Amino acid sequence: MWDHLEKNTSYMGAADDFAGARVVILGAPMDFTVTFRPGARLAPLQIRLVSQGLEEYSPYLDRDLRDCRYFDAGDLVFPPGSVEKSVQRIALTVEKLLVHGKFPLLLGGEHLVSLPAIQAVARFYPHLAVIHLDAHLDLRDEYYGQKLSHATVMRRVAEFIGGENVYQLGIRSGAREEFYYARAHTNLFFNEVASPLQKIMKEIKDRPVYVTLDIDVLDPAYAPGTGTPEPGGCSPQEVIQALHDLRRAQVVGLDIVEVSPVYDPSERTSFLAAKLAREAILAFSP
Amino acid sequence: MWDHLEKNTSYMGAADDFAGARVVILGAPMDFTVTFRPGARLAPLQIRLVSQGLEEYSPYLDRDLRDCRYFDAGDLVFPPGSVEKSVQRIALTVEKLLVHGKFPLLLGGEHLVSLPAIQAVARFYPHLAVIHLDAHLDLRDEYYGQKLSHATVMRRVAEFIGGENVYQLGIRSGAREEFYYARAHTNLFFNEVASPLQKIMKEIKDRPVYVTLDIDVLDPAYAPGTGTPEPGGCSPQEVIQALHDLRRAQVVGLDIVEVSPVYDPSERTSFLAAKLAREAILAFSP
Amino acid sequence: MWDHLEKNTSYMGAADDFAGARVVILGAPMDFTVTFRPGARLAPLQIRLVSQGLEEYSPYLDRDLRDCRYFDAGDLVFPPGSVEKSVQRIALTVEKLLVHGKFPLLLGGEHLVSLPAIQAVARFYPHLAVIHLDAHLDLRDEYYGQKLSHATVMRRVAEFIGGENVYQLGIRSGAREEFYYARAHTNLFFNEVASPLQKIMKEIKDRPVYVTLDIDVLDPAYAPGTGTPEPGGCSPQEVIQALHDLRRAQVVGLDIVEVSPVYDPSERTSFLAAKLAREAILAFSP
Amino acid sequence: MWDHLEKNTSYMGAADDFAGARVVILGAPMDFTVTFRPGARLAPLQIRLVSQGLEEYSPYLDRDLRDCRYFDAGDLVFPPGSVEKSVQRIALTVEKLLVHGKFPLLLGGEHLVSLPAIQAVARFYPHLAVIHLDAHLDLRDEYYGQKLSHATVMRRVAEFIGGENVYQLGIRSGAREEFYYARAHTNLFFNEVASPLQKIMKEIKDRPVYVTLDIDVLDPAYAPGTGTPEPGGCSPQEVIQALHDLRRAQVVGLDIVEVSPVYDPSERTSFLAAKLAREAILAFSP
Amino acid sequence: MWDHLEKNTSYMGAADDFAGARVVILGAPMDFTVTFRPGARLAPLQIRLVSQGLEEYSPYLDRDLRDCRYFDAGDLVFPPGSVEKSVQRIALTVEKLLVHGKFPLLLGGEHLVSLPAIQAVARFYPHLAVIHLDAHLDLRDEYYGQKLSHATVMRRVAEFIGGENVYQLGIRSGAREEFYYARAHTNLFFNEVASPLQKIMKEIKDRPVYVTLDIDVLDPAYAPGTGTPEPGGCSPQEVIQALHDLRRAQVVGLDIVEVSPVYDPSERTSFLAAKLAREAILAFSP
Amino acid sequence: MWDHLEKNTSYMGAADDFAGARVVILGAPMDFTVTFRPGARLAPLQIRLVSQGLEEYSPYLDRDLRDCRYFDAGDLVFPPGSVEKSVQRIALTVEKLLVHGKFPLLLGGEHLVSLPAIQAVARFYPHLAVIHLDAHLDLRDEYYGQKLSHATVMRRVAEFIGGENVYQLGIRSGAREEFYYARAHTNLFFNEVASPLQKIMKEIKDRPVYVTLDIDVLDPAYAPGTGTPEPGGCSPQEVIQALHDLRRAQVVGLDIVEVSPVYDPSERTSFLAAKLAREAILAFSP
Repeated sequence: MWDHLEKNTSYMGAADDFAGARVVILGAPMDFTVTFRPGARLAPLQIRLVSQGLEEYSPYLDRDLRDCRYFDAGDLVFPPGSVEKSVQRIALTVEKLLVHGKFPLLLGGEHLVSLPAIQAVARFYPHLAVIHLDAHLDLRDEYYGQKLSHATVMRRVAEFIGGENVYQLGIRSGAREEFYYARAHTNLFFNEVASPLQKIMKEIKDRPVYVTLDIDVLDPAYAPGTGTPEPGGCSPQEVIQALHDLRRAQVVGLDIVEVSPVYDPSERTSFLAAKLAREAILAFSP
Repeated sequence: MWDHLEKNTSYMGAADDFAGARVVILGAPMDFTVTFRPGARLAPLQIRLVSQGLEEYSPYLDRDLRDCRYFDAGDLVFPPGSVEKSVQRIALTVEKLLVHGKFPLLLGGEHLVSLPAIQAVARFYPHLAVIHLDAHLDLRDEYYGQKLSHATVMRRVAEFIGGENVYQLGIRSGAREEFYYARAHTNLFFNEVASPLQKIMKEIKDRPVYVTLDIDVLDPAYAPGTGTPEPGGCSPQEVIQALHDLRRAQVVGLDIVEVSPVYDPSERTSFLAAKLAREAILAFSP
Repeated sequence: MWDHLEKNTSYMGAADDFAGARVVILGAPMDFTVTFRPGARLAPLQIRLVSQGLEEYSPYLDRDLRDCRYFDAGDLVFPPGSVEKSVQRIALTVEKLLVHGKFPLLLGGEHLVSLPAIQAVARFYPHLAVIHLDAHLDLRDEYYGQKLSHATVMRRVAEFIGGENVYQLGIRSGAREEFYYARAHTNLFFNEVASPLQKIMKEIKDRPVYVTLDIDVLDPAYAPGTGTPEPGGCSPQEVIQALHDLRRAQVVGLDIVEVSPVYDPSERTSFLAAKLAREAILAFSP
Repeated sequence: MWDHLEKNTSYMGAADDFAGARVVILGAPMDFTVTFRPGARLAPLQIRLVSQGLEEYSPYLDRDLRDCRYFDAGDLVFPPGSVEKSVQRIALTVEKLLVHGKFPLLLGGEHLVSLPAIQAVARFYPHLAVIHLDAHLDLRDEYYGQKLSHATVMRRVAEFIGGENVYQLGIRSGAREEFYYARAHTNLFFNEVASPLQKIMKEIKDRPVYVTLDIDVLDPAYAPGTGTPEPGGCSPQEVIQALHDLRRAQVVGLDIVEVSPVYDPSERTSFLAAKLAREAILAFSP
Repeated sequence: MWDHLEKNTSYMGAADDFAGARVVILGAPMDFTVTFRPGARLAPLQIRLVSQGLEEYSPYLDRDLRDCRYFDAGDLVFPPGSVEKSVQRIALTVEKLLVHGKFPLLLGGEHLVSLPAIQAVARFYPHLAVIHLDAHLDLRDEYYGQKLSHATVMRRVAEFIGGENVYQLGIRSGAREEFYYARAHTNLFFNEVASPLQKIMKEIKDRPVYVTLDIDVLDPAYAPGTGTPEPGGCSPQEVIQALHDLRRAQVVGLDIVEVSPVYDPSERTSFLAAKLAREAILAFSP
Repeated sequence: MWDHLEKNTSYMGAADDFAGARVVILGAPMDFTVTFRPGARLAPLQIRLVSQGLEEYSPYLDRDLRDCRYFDAGDLVFPPGSVEKSVQRIALTVEKLLVHGKFPLLLGGEHLVSLPAIQAVARFYPHLAVIHLDAHLDLRDEYYGQKLSHATVMRRVAEFIGGENVYQLGIRSGAREEFYYARAHTNLFFNEVASPLQKIMKEIKDRPVYVTLDIDVLDPAYAPGTGTPEPGGCSPQEVIQALHDLRRAQVVGLDIVEVSPVYDPSERTSFLAAKLAREAILAFSP
């Protein structure tokens, strides 16, 4: 039933119990459409490896991974260079996860991997809201002539679920046209994460929520290993706090994308992603 | 007319129109007098290269490089190891730029490159004030017996334009003698950028202002690629804000110095410098 | 006429004279189908940058780039993630170069970029022989379900021009099936470059020859910056000698592929590629 | 009298006067029990080397190393792989320093080196309080079956001097059992440094205080070069301020541990440790 | 039955069939006694990870891993900092492997891990000969007062099995005393691998042979990632050839030690070790 | 008497006995005139540091540093950016060493540091021959308008002592003009070291000889950490052999230049330079 999956190593503490799990980790090691600095394909492996250096217990939440039931499904295997087929594989696998009642926790890969995941989730959960933490708007209509790209992903999402259901936080970069589009069609929160989130959560109430977290929402000081670092971003504390605040929402899926280990000699970007994944598992497991 | 210039690549979006430009980018790839960690000579090239990873639009200023007229003059070619001739070449070239009505945006190189630039600007604009953002005072009288050095540059500037016209912000390092000199002769603002700047701008009103920005004013977390990293510095947000605040002053020239790509494996120091250059172009173009 | 080309910087000493040039450098910064370590997309820029650290004169050939007429056409711009369109763009551009009487010197990118180049050259020059210097056979029929891939490129070449016209030198890695295919269909020279080349040149006489040089034919000691380093390779002297020996053949095109600057902290793989490019220009210019 | 000491280079400005010194720097280049990322053994040398890039004057304290009498005793030589003997050597040497009226400033090495130092200091100064700045609790009872380990060091300290005398600040990681232990036996201040310190100092009044500073109390953005980076930590300003505040306490010894130069390509973790050492010398010298 | 083993990821192509396997890979991630540059503890994981970039087929031997039955037992878990217990665990595990009829292929770790392995093998196979490929003699009687150390390992081996049964090849470094010892007690082949091996094999005939391969026998150009690089070593071809030649001997166990991934930014030392491991599996499987 | 010298750390095993020493190590950490990649200023420190990872005994020569009397004088302190004064300081210090009967072993620094050393030696030893091991001819008359430069150093040497007394080995790069000059005025041995050296030694017989060794004579595989790596060079064995062969000549001084630690992440270029220095001390001490 589960095609195109392979597994080298697991996220720390993951049990071998798919049936009992709520959160399922799924690696999407793709960076075909990246135009600047490559390497996001290596992130799922590296995040799992460094997770061994973290504790299974979160003092923030007073909760332990040993109390949660989550499963690491391994990495999707993509046909090299085939964007369409790869995007399709993500969609199919996420759909299956949803059918089995799972919470998909996707580890990218480039940001394009979020598109099929969000589409699958939106088909499954009507009235979905998407919370998008990122330095960049990713709202281009096309990029170098391509409709499917890390630079167009949120435009496609906005078209699919309606821009009014897209909440963009921490944003500090984009083409002028993207900002115009955002002001006209989505909910844009310039350069801020914490305070807009409070406002958004009042608005979305108990609607299902998907969270897409581009690691470059953090300042490059905290997350240097990424494709297009954009100085002036937020801190780990703000993002950790955001994940904790989101416990009060109905989060049904989440991804962490654009970590590039080849630009991360100290490995701290991967450590950060691994810690955010831990907090997400703990926050969104029953 | 333009001697000793060569050009490998341009800052993003620079048009081929010197006549129409206000801001002119000039690389000064010199690190002859650096005593600790070398590499500032490689900064102008690297800053230009990574600028391609940024957007041309600034959401902070709601302004786009496509609306500005700026020119990239390339790099000065220096006689290797000859400090005096190199300093002279910078002075001559900046003078010519001023005569043509240009705003020089110098990309160092080590901090000594600011001296001839400031001297040229001060000769052109009487009553010049210099705003100096740096971790270090650079007020030594001489350094290892040399009068011209990255460690003496602001002393020479203070002697040339009068210490009372020098405003030093973000400072958190120097020899005791330099601090004594600063307290007696210049305007010293210890470890702070944002709030003193407000005060200074009230004081200098519409006098012409030159801004010299040593990248190590930022904490090494944000700008690790520099010759003498000094922990405890400010954040990108503070420096970006400072540039924006300075729109209300009569800024007539600016430099960004002491970026050293060889200590910057994640390239984020160069990204930061490129972004500061973009904000400066947008802020100081008509 | 020349679409989809952009240019940041040029290979050292390249004149601005397309019409007069014989050798034309063309960057193909694509690594969409790479499955292991990315970064080949950054090679054309990096090779040009470090070329400035070499001399224009070759003491091996007693010839100087100043005596040659060559042109640097810049880099092809690819639609991110679109293998078919990218391959087509290479084919079209190489065809145009051939129509204009040029010798294409392609700088990859991954090895797949050689396929459209070789096909274009083979259409233009009947009876083409291909000399393939590589650690890997690249003779898979498909790879992760894909027909177009860096791992299948020489299979596609063999199918297009006939395996008997493909000469594979320096080979020391491949799947068993690839070796069987090679023994049945191509000319395989295991782990050797110098002596088989003499034999081949006697065989191919004055037939037109295209040379495709995967940098991993060299030992990783000499070329660490590559996607799949394979210990046990040859030395720079052997490859330089091969290029010089090939002056006696009718070489009509050449590529240098699979340099990955992100795994090359000392930059010496790029230096090596730049030197091989210089020797090729000098060897194959009239 | 001083066995097992060797010296390659000295901390900046250290005079050759043991007798007159109050603060004595002692390197403890040991990382035998580190389980994740090694390299702390290289820290004492690297911290001394980069100290040359700092000034001897602290503008924070308006004090100069030239006004202080401190001595650099060099590094302890450890029997490779022998934890017990190494720990004993540290204890013996620190004891001798105390007998001579010195203030030990230990440069680790992994955190285990603090245990013998604290035990020696506690034997010498009854009623000792220990202020522990760290991301991790280090309160395990044993670790992979070992009682002596970087992960158990504060448990051993708490057992030796009583948990009520241990103040743990900046903590943001540990196993659940460690947090339970901390809540029951030590004084735990989650994720904060500055404000708890004020409270603690009121409590400990003029009791003797030993400060143990694990560099990972700082966010990995500021201190990437460490064994187990934990995102979400404090800033250099907070730690510098803490050292300055501690002038009002009776600090009798201090260590800086867990700097790992092999994960610190920009060297800024070592710069930070060197600066903290300078502030400590200036703060705690008479 | 198998205590103290954990497994993150496997060497490429390893089947899940312990019973049917002849060669069993066992990681020994220990570097407690390393005195210079650490990191060997990370080698078993890294070698397994990069093995994915190699082919399963060896064109040298015309043999494929798919034809062999080998098993990856994972890594031994060592009590941090406890040399004696760690050495004991290796001995016990290797003994068990021998009892089960296995060929142990140990991946270090530092060179000390070879001692318990060789002792176990020597107890199992009387008249054992040890072939030692290394830059260093490792024949010190003690090192910094320790009998068990990476610098004394071959002395302990010589004492255990008799120096006349130890063949040391590729050697180019050691203290004078070690060379005197070697000349008196072992079989020393200075700076050479290939030709002495022929001679040795005639001598040892069908005696059981254990091969211990310190990666620094290769020149640092080929194997930079190691604790104490020693310029002037041999090439991959020579070591690969040695492994192939040893097929004619009765090799009953082998280790590859002293790979340090933290000094291997291009990963090529790990690639080399992975390739040597593949050739060993193929050469010594039935 | 010895001005402008400072000392951080010593080359391994150096005794504190200037009077009794024959070989005196002198660091010349200057890279003012380097035009491409900086960092040679850091070499003397780094070479001394890694020397601790080597043995004091040379099995090649069966000689031990403990048998030799050599002294490490530390590093010259240069006025930053002042080429003339720096060159003068080297000349003065080398002269003093010669007057005291010493053999200067200079550790650069860029290649220009050899000029004053050779001039001083030539004044002291009439009929001096210079053996120059390098990838580059360094025979330009001027470079970017400068007469004193790393690119002109051997021209100045040739002018000072007569080109017929300059023997250039291992050469594989230079401008055409430099090769013409070499063919007309010096003794050029293209791309070879070992065999020409035999010939040269017959020619120079018992004349005094100074050896200047630019580390880039070795292939970048062995010496990546250098300013202008030139692929296609010789191996460590060849250079070590050359030093040993030179024992039969009257070598009176030697330098090792152009090591750049910032491009040497594995540190092996410094290890190689340290080993060559050891062999030189052992070869040229009485």
